[in-house]
Amino acid sequence: MKVRAAVVEGLNDIAVRELELAEPRAGEVLVRLVATGICHTDLSMLRGNLPVPMPFVPGHEGAGIVEAVGSGVTDITVGDHVVCSIVFSCGTCYTCSRHQLPCELGASVAFTGQMPDGTFRLRDGDRDVNHIFCQSSFATHTVVPAAAVAKVRADAPLDKVAALGCGVGTGLGAVINRARVTPGSSVLVLGAGGVGLAAMLGARLVGAAKVIAVDLADSKLDKAKTVAADEVINPRTTDLSDAVDALTEGRGVDYSFDAVGAEGTLEDCFRATRPGGTCVAIGIMNATVSSPIDTYSLLMEKTLTGTFGGSISPKRDIPAFVELYMAGRLDLGALIDYECKLDGVAAALEDLERGAFTRAVVRHE
Amino acid sequence: MKVRAAVVEGLNDIAVRELELAEPRAGEVLVRLVATGICHTDLSMLRGNLPVPMPFVPGHEGAGIVEAVGSGVTDITVGDHVVCSIVFSCGTCYTCSRHQLPCELGASVAFTGQMPDGTFRLRDGDRDVNHIFCQSSFATHTVVPAAAVAKVRADAPLDKVAALGCGVGTGLGAVINRARVTPGSSVLVLGAGGVGLAAMLGARLVGAAKVIAVDLADSKLDKAKTVAADEVINPRTTDLSDAVDALTEGRGVDYSFDAVGAEGTLEDCFRATRPGGTCVAIGIMNATVSSPIDTYSLLMEKTLTGTFGGSISPKRDIPAFVELYMAGRLDLGALIDYECKLDGVAAALEDLERGAFTRAVVRHE
Repeated sequence: MKVRAAVVEGLNDIAVRELELAEPRAGEVLVRLVATGICHTDLSMLRGNLPVPMPFVPGHEGAGIVEAVGSGVTDITVGDHVVCSIVFSCGTCYTCSRHQLPCELGASVAFTGQMPDGTFRLRDGDRDVNHIFCQSSFATHTVVPAAAVAKVRADAPLDKVAALGCGVGTGLGAVINRARVTPGSSVLVLGAGGVGLAAMLGARLVGAAKVIAVDLADSKLDKAKTVAADEVINPRTTDLSDAVDALTEGRGVDYSFDAVGAEGTLEDCFRATRPGGTCVAIGIMNATVSSPIDTYSLLMEKTLTGTFGGSISPKRDIPAFVELYMAGRLDLGALIDYECKLDGVAAALEDLERGAFTRAVVRHE
Repeated sequence: MKVRAAVVEGLNDIAVRELELAEPRAGEVLVRLVATGICHTDLSMLRGNLPVPMPFVPGHEGAGIVEAVGSGVTDITVGDHVVCSIVFSCGTCYTCSRHQLPCELGASVAFTGQMPDGTFRLRDGDRDVNHIFCQSSFATHTVVPAAAVAKVRADAPLDKVAALGCGVGTGLGAVINRARVTPGSSVLVLGAGGVGLAAMLGARLVGAAKVIAVDLADSKLDKAKTVAADEVINPRTTDLSDAVDALTEGRGVDYSFDAVGAEGTLEDCFRATRPGGTCVAIGIMNATVSSPIDTYSLLMEKTLTGTFGGSISPKRDIPAFVELYMAGRLDLGALIDYECKLDGVAAALEDLERGAFTRAVVRHE
């Protein structure tokens, strides 16, 4: 079928045009997109900070309505409202068989532009177009693996919940799935953008006693306070270590999350974590960041880890987060402060780079 | 009472002489030492690589027979055969109340030379002598916190099990308590000294499928093969990454342990670990080692952590390891290839520095 999609032909070269989308094969579904979140990773790929093959269609926080299902798909049917996750598990690889992430198959195809079977779904004349994260949802329609698709209740506003497929799900899941923050804990989140705010919402949800937001922009810290933070620290004006010590009796926080991933940020988070505590890398600005870690403090039983998309189990977690949103217990709407149409994606990515918004959503209709 | 002890007056200055040992106070026990293991940390403190206050008495793998108990000690009585651990938990601090290590009290006094109550037990004339790890067991007798003391069966040879109090307990516990290696796993241990060999024994004990020893000395690798290793890699002659890939279908090991702690070793271990796997720092050569960690691979759910003395619960783990040794299921004797008297400690530490043995034990009688 003919679809309209935002195609990246080369670095910083993005434009909407018509492509051919193949039918869903076995274990896949065709989704008519209603809303897609814009994630910083889309920008990183456009700018070349995360290398991906060209040409490709970005977009990986899609939500929409199922229009067709391939053979063997049993839990998703035509008409279902769905959120498409960047995370899926094949169930049988080495990692999946150990009940861990990342699925070797899922991780191997995330940036290759291929579907799990090694083929492509998008074509531009006689060229294959790469299908990033097996999703490429800056488009009117997409074909995605059914394993990556979470059915959600039909009355949920898809523009509000689309980002559960990547950025917001990653922030929530880093706290809930990966670190398993417990009630009463102290939690530091470095970076008060969309992912960081989602992590703070997650910490609130599971009963953290003290949520500390760290950012270089006072405006983001103000927003963090209204969303979920109890305390804020701006390292431009306050020494981070001193401020953390003051908030934790000199001990460090129980859990820290790096939602920035720039040079030095993970080191800051790790240092802010108490002995026996856990520090989680949520994202990175580019693929080459290396963090010098003080080995001695590892012997104090500190743990450093990271999360693949919030360690999400899409079919379990996304409907649960949607229910919490619908019940007024998880304010996903507070994160979204920008919207555009598909034709506005290029401008929106530039606005993202300027820090013009927290989270944006593309409305496809 | 008068005791004989090896006293370090300054860097590289160690000699045996007489000191005054105070009686055990509340919650403490007096132990007549029978055997004490020699640990690399003793050497690090003598050489100034781990800063401690002078003068002090090294030795922290003591085993012996209880001669007196202070008030409030209920689980240890005169005549008990005991192993003295470097790890103890006060039970009430912030970390203990979260069922974690390190105990804030225990960690705070490990290198200060003080007992948990902030006082000293050893005196030299009118000077306090520092009581390292609350133990200082290169001596005929010591006073230690009862919380750090594990009662073991009276027929266990104390020279064989003394090192459960630090080095051997640390290697075993890193695998069993901290990483919780599961049956069928692949395990890489970097460093085939006493701690590394203990980690390999631990991996064998819990059913690891493939134990890979890495060391720069072929002689140590030969020993590792006889003790517990299935495969050996000498990075001087074989590329470590290539060799690990060849042994793990290109995936990396499930668990890795750095029992060296020199510049670059933790990085090597982390790199050798598969996505979703766990890398554990067991020890360090000096307190200033920093390890550059590839942040991107953290997002593949790798975990980097470390252990405080094998995350040992002394009263649970040490008697259990002793039982396994007595049943022939844990060959602690294979690790010991050197012994001396108290007067020979200085020479033994020099031999340790030359790599003359795997594990040494001081016989106090």
